[in-house]
Amino acid sequence: MLAFEIQARSGETAARCGCFQTAHGEVRTPVFMPVGTLGSVKALTPEELKDAGAQIILGNTYHLNLRPGVDVIRHFEGLHRFMHWDGPILTDSGGFQVFSLAKLQKITEEGAAFQSHIDGSRHMLTPESAVEIQMALDADIMMPLDWCIGYPAERADVLAAVERTTRWAERCRTVWQAKARPQAALFGIVQGGMFDDLRRRSAEALVALDLPGYALGGLSVGEPAEIMLAVAAKALPLLPEDRPRYIMGVGTPEDLVELVARGADMFDCVLPTRNARNGQLITAYGTLNISNARFREDVRPPDADCTCYTCRHFSRAYLRHLYMARELLAYRLNSIHNIHYYTHLMAGMRQAIRENSFDAFRRAFYRDRRASGD
Amino acid sequence: MLAFEIQARSGETAARCGCFQTAHGEVRTPVFMPVGTLGSVKALTPEELKDAGAQIILGNTYHLNLRPGVDVIRHFEGLHRFMHWDGPILTDSGGFQVFSLAKLQKITEEGAAFQSHIDGSRHMLTPESAVEIQMALDADIMMPLDWCIGYPAERADVLAAVERTTRWAERCRTVWQAKARPQAALFGIVQGGMFDDLRRRSAEALVALDLPGYALGGLSVGEPAEIMLAVAAKALPLLPEDRPRYIMGVGTPEDLVELVARGADMFDCVLPTRNARNGQLITAYGTLNISNARFREDVRPPDADCTCYTCRHFSRAYLRHLYMARELLAYRLNSIHNIHYYTHLMAGMRQAIRENSFDAFRRAFYRDRRASGD
Repeated sequence: MLAFEIQARSGETAARCGCFQTAHGEVRTPVFMPVGTLGSVKALTPEELKDAGAQIILGNTYHLNLRPGVDVIRHFEGLHRFMHWDGPILTDSGGFQVFSLAKLQKITEEGAAFQSHIDGSRHMLTPESAVEIQMALDADIMMPLDWCIGYPAERADVLAAVERTTRWAERCRTVWQAKARPQAALFGIVQGGMFDDLRRRSAEALVALDLPGYALGGLSVGEPAEIMLAVAAKALPLLPEDRPRYIMGVGTPEDLVELVARGADMFDCVLPTRNARNGQLITAYGTLNISNARFREDVRPPDADCTCYTCRHFSRAYLRHLYMARELLAYRLNSIHNIHYYTHLMAGMRQAIRENSFDAFRRAFYRDRRASGD
Repeated sequence: MLAFEIQARSGETAARCGCFQTAHGEVRTPVFMPVGTLGSVKALTPEELKDAGAQIILGNTYHLNLRPGVDVIRHFEGLHRFMHWDGPILTDSGGFQVFSLAKLQKITEEGAAFQSHIDGSRHMLTPESAVEIQMALDADIMMPLDWCIGYPAERADVLAAVERTTRWAERCRTVWQAKARPQAALFGIVQGGMFDDLRRRSAEALVALDLPGYALGGLSVGEPAEIMLAVAAKALPLLPEDRPRYIMGVGTPEDLVELVARGADMFDCVLPTRNARNGQLITAYGTLNISNARFREDVRPPDADCTCYTCRHFSRAYLRHLYMARELLAYRLNSIHNIHYYTHLMAGMRQAIRENSFDAFRRAFYRDRRASGD
């Protein structure tokens, strides 16, 4: 289990600060987890990730199972040695990608049959195999196979997905209890779309399974941000106080601040790295589109207050030049900055909670974002 | 000037080992200079370059003049601060790129008029402006504008290019002597194609200008490797013993060993970085095409004897996976390895010359390359 310990709470909000232990080290929460889809957080080395403040990263079961294949990763006794990351790793179940990426998927009670989006090869993912693959990856935190419904969706479809997600979670739990090494955790994934009563139904069924942590899935699937926030706000209190609460695939800096305020502990999102590769540098004062001509001769770093490698050594003019010339270093330097921004936003929230000043932190966060950095 | 000092010579060959001083530090020769075309050695940070053993890097005047433009780099007082590289920089004159890359070039005695290969904008490069641009880049070593002839070429054309290159070198020298800071060096570039007597004519005229160093240009322009080597072998002894001798745009590991044996001191080439981005890892035992299926489960590093960051932490299987998935980290890890291979090949030669064992080094080099690494 994770030995999750809550060390401080914010007085005026539901925010909390804590830590949990894994076989690959401690994780301080609230935490943002950079996404390493294919066994690398795009463009970055493990050392750069640590330097940018990353504590735990994500691996994608669907992608790694197709490329390079778990049989390859077994030769390295898991993803850690394969990719040279000795910190904790959380892997998703692959369910979300089967539904969003794979071709010709056919979902039955047994599991999800699908064709690879790469080469059309046929695969089957069951609750059991999803856990077994994640065991082969040696994930510190595994996610159960779930059935994710998009937005908008009919109530009947969402209900069916909730019921099946619960049954699949039970099957995942059986494999995990029988086979996984003691320190590896399995979380539950609450579904229910944008229906509060179905979220409750899903949460209650999964909480009864007494899992080491709980996630909200099926958010940021196309719904407006305020709906996401409203659904999460109602669902978070349904999750056990003494277990980490993970919001999957979310989100913007504002999302993270608002969800921490509502008691969430863990996040993952491709936003900081994907936006970096699209030339968007996220700062406390808003986003710089580095391709903008006004940065052509700008000798300042992206954010004068930022202590990341990129801001310590490079100017907006240089970053614009690299980006315009499509130099590979551009993607890297931008990614380092954005990951650093996210991890330091989380560190700031942890400190504010410990100092019982989270509400002041949140006000300052919005005040800075309204101010222009230029 | 460069204060070039020869510290050791190989007994059986013309190889020599030395060092020269620049405003940005000492360079030990023989040396390989990684190419930073657009103000970055593709995919790598300055720290990685140093860690991989790079002492001095190249910048390309033609490219930097078009993007971002020297007016931008002037805001940083040169390329060093712009790109965060505090070591020595050598810049080429842009001549080679005007002839090989630009559109609609028109060469007159005045200089080279051309259109940008990026946006078709019109530019003029003269011997004077080539030096002035390199002064704005704050290059530690500048190259004069020369007229490079391809292969094969008519003798009359090569002769005309030699004569003009000499006249242009004189004009470059005038600007350099009048305006450049005292520590910035200007080299001469010997042309003459594959005609030994024209090489001699070019060398003699340039040596009379008493420049701090001399280069052989117009090699590796399409001629067979043995012709390149034969031409260089005859031209190198025409250059002053007490000045660094630089072979431009060359070459393979074998080229470097053979040219050092003939008395060359400096090299630059895109081969290690370009091949890295094409999945070719250069080792003492030959080249690994990392996409090869036989590396799929290969837990070994590219070269078990190599001490580079890539070989210390990553396997052939992981590098193959990254490369096949087109992950950005692939280009980086491969480039680190290849640059390290080149810089350590040069370090090995320097040590062998100091120990008066260069011939044994050369024999071992070929013996290893004949042996299979797998």
